[in-house]
Amino acid sequence: MNLDLMRELSVSTDSKIVLLILDGLGGLPMEAGGRTELEAASTPNFDRLAASSDLGLSRPVAAGVSPGSGPGHLALFGYNPLEYQVGRGVLSALGVGFDLGESDLAARINFATLDGEGKISDRRAGRIPSEKGAELVDLLNENVRIDGAEVFVIHEKEYRAVVVFRAPGLSGSLSDTDPQRVGLEPLPVKPTEPSEGTEKAASLANAFVEGANEVLKDQHPANTVLLRGFGMHPALPSFEETYGLRAAAIASYPMYKGLARLAGMDLLKEGEGISGEFDTLEAAWDDHDFFFVHVKPTDAAGEDGDFERKRGVIEEVDGLLPRLLELGPAALAVTGDHATPAKMKSHSWHGVPFLLRSPYTLPTAETFGERACAGGSLGAFPAEEIMGLLMGHALKLNRYGA
Amino acid sequence: MNLDLMRELSVSTDSKIVLLILDGLGGLPMEAGGRTELEAASTPNFDRLAASSDLGLSRPVAAGVSPGSGPGHLALFGYNPLEYQVGRGVLSALGVGFDLGESDLAARINFATLDGEGKISDRRAGRIPSEKGAELVDLLNENVRIDGAEVFVIHEKEYRAVVVFRAPGLSGSLSDTDPQRVGLEPLPVKPTEPSEGTEKAASLANAFVEGANEVLKDQHPANTVLLRGFGMHPALPSFEETYGLRAAAIASYPMYKGLARLAGMDLLKEGEGISGEFDTLEAAWDDHDFFFVHVKPTDAAGEDGDFERKRGVIEEVDGLLPRLLELGPAALAVTGDHATPAKMKSHSWHGVPFLLRSPYTLPTAETFGERACAGGSLGAFPAEEIMGLLMGHALKLNRYGA
Repeated sequence: MNLDLMRELSVSTDSKIVLLILDGLGGLPMEAGGRTELEAASTPNFDRLAASSDLGLSRPVAAGVSPGSGPGHLALFGYNPLEYQVGRGVLSALGVGFDLGESDLAARINFATLDGEGKISDRRAGRIPSEKGAELVDLLNENVRIDGAEVFVIHEKEYRAVVVFRAPGLSGSLSDTDPQRVGLEPLPVKPTEPSEGTEKAASLANAFVEGANEVLKDQHPANTVLLRGFGMHPALPSFEETYGLRAAAIASYPMYKGLARLAGMDLLKEGEGISGEFDTLEAAWDDHDFFFVHVKPTDAAGEDGDFERKRGVIEEVDGLLPRLLELGPAALAVTGDHATPAKMKSHSWHGVPFLLRSPYTLPTAETFGERACAGGSLGAFPAEEIMGLLMGHALKLNRYGA
Repeated sequence: MNLDLMRELSVSTDSKIVLLILDGLGGLPMEAGGRTELEAASTPNFDRLAASSDLGLSRPVAAGVSPGSGPGHLALFGYNPLEYQVGRGVLSALGVGFDLGESDLAARINFATLDGEGKISDRRAGRIPSEKGAELVDLLNENVRIDGAEVFVIHEKEYRAVVVFRAPGLSGSLSDTDPQRVGLEPLPVKPTEPSEGTEKAASLANAFVEGANEVLKDQHPANTVLLRGFGMHPALPSFEETYGLRAAAIASYPMYKGLARLAGMDLLKEGEGISGEFDTLEAAWDDHDFFFVHVKPTDAAGEDGDFERKRGVIEEVDGLLPRLLELGPAALAVTGDHATPAKMKSHSWHGVPFLLRSPYTLPTAETFGERACAGGSLGAFPAEEIMGLLMGHALKLNRYGA
């Protein structure tokens, strides 16, 4: 998306935009001749919506390339995912609500288990419960000190945490300590691009690991930390400055909250489950003019290879849809950040069903599904263009040129 | 295609990819309301394949732009054809198996006929037979010497040959000597971009023409040479480094072999005719993980305006298809490097029918044809993306981003 063009053309109006993301929505037939998860789902509300919507297939990053959640969402928000890159550590830090500064370096922590020979025997320390994880994080915060930097450890969930190094002149181009396999020793952190900033950062990170090992040595099973996904806070132009939108995010998972915060969105308190997210949407309706609503369980079901569960989640969202429509958004898009076909049990590169409803559409089908979308008026198009389409359909863009 | 991204994400696996190119596959109805060559052909095997494939229309270069074989194939291999440019001389030199160095300058030679006034009376010297062409090439190699450069003349076929100038500091931005019309004098070679390298190269080329005219002056009808398509060896990133593929090419014409060699593919000995190419494919199956199979006669028939012959070639390939499918490629694409509609008797800019079969497709039609492809899940897309799609479908790309 050309963000400068959006900045130049965008105008503030009272009209409201909703971007409803069913994570990993796109799917595939389990068997030749079959239907996808979305095609198989009974979705009377989505189908009725499709009949008054523009349809297409959105492509997250590039032909054949399966995106992680980071690049998938950056594209949805209009940021070129090859130009703007966000490390996993940064996403997690933002997701837990840490106020990441522009010179902070973040990395993901997994608590893990070392055997007597110093080799990794469990990369997730037996998936320790969240209470234990929080206790270990407190231990690290109280006892690990390293020269030349402030260190913050924040618990995420279970065996997962985030570490943030605060010192001037750091750079995030660093390798992971997690060798990705058990039976190996953890790796030292090394610069992937040599510079003063990466050398300094690598030495801080290695000192932290050493200190953590000392503090955790008598713990069991979590007696070490593995670090990965180093990165600095990326400087994304905000939704406010780019689109002139007072944007809000409704998401229940840290990473998606983190992505929304990167774009400058307000994080709204989500309710319980998917219907709780719709409660939040209704409650906050008057206070913002853009809502990013993120539904996670479609992706989780796809990752588990559970076609029926994924179909069920889609049907659940379909059942809630009338509540959203009742609010009367000027422009509503429904899509995913990528496909997660149950057949593949993973993110994939396939085009994602996309639907955009406004008063200014050219409907082509009576159902919402991959093949209906393939024949839609938008065709196959880059996900990066979705924000432009939404801004146009909500009549929030001035004409370009005389 | 973003080749850096491919390099970053590609992983080596045992799965095999086949790119089957029917040169000039795309066509048009001869009359309003009619069918294209591919639509009219009886292709039960392609149709069955289409019913389990992703379909689309691939666009070689840019809207409305008819590509030569060079750009058409560069795009198929994932190289941006506007960024990577290859002169015809270079293609021919590589095609005849000449070991072109990075500082070598190549040009195509046509033996031609000059009349008594020094004007061209036949641009192909009456299409002299190959034996005569080879004899003249020997004469030139034995007798033409120019100061400051080694010169190699290699016979291609009939009246066609290649000349290679080897000297330091040459540049290939030079104009042709062939004025493209009879009744005119040959043109001198001139720099199209002034530089030391082009001045030097132009003077070498003009000296070569002068020397050749002296050697050939008593020959009939081939008493001169016309030079065109000057160019240096382009530095294409290889298939091995870009995609991690051990790639092989099966092609019967020099130019396509040359294109494949540019991409670092191994050239396999083709058998007799199209079925001979399939013999080669079967014999080499275990030794490579990517196969480019090039079928020429579709294009030749299109160039001749012979709708029925083109249709016949398509049907011949259809009959051979089961042999290819029997090998069990993980991902198979069938398309052309451009359209050559019999109606136009030339290459054209039209979208080329494209089919991709893997276990991870979203089929939309039961036939393989231009209009079935237009409604496919890939829509209209740049041919440059084909390699990314094949890599994704063969599960040879890691996920992008966290």
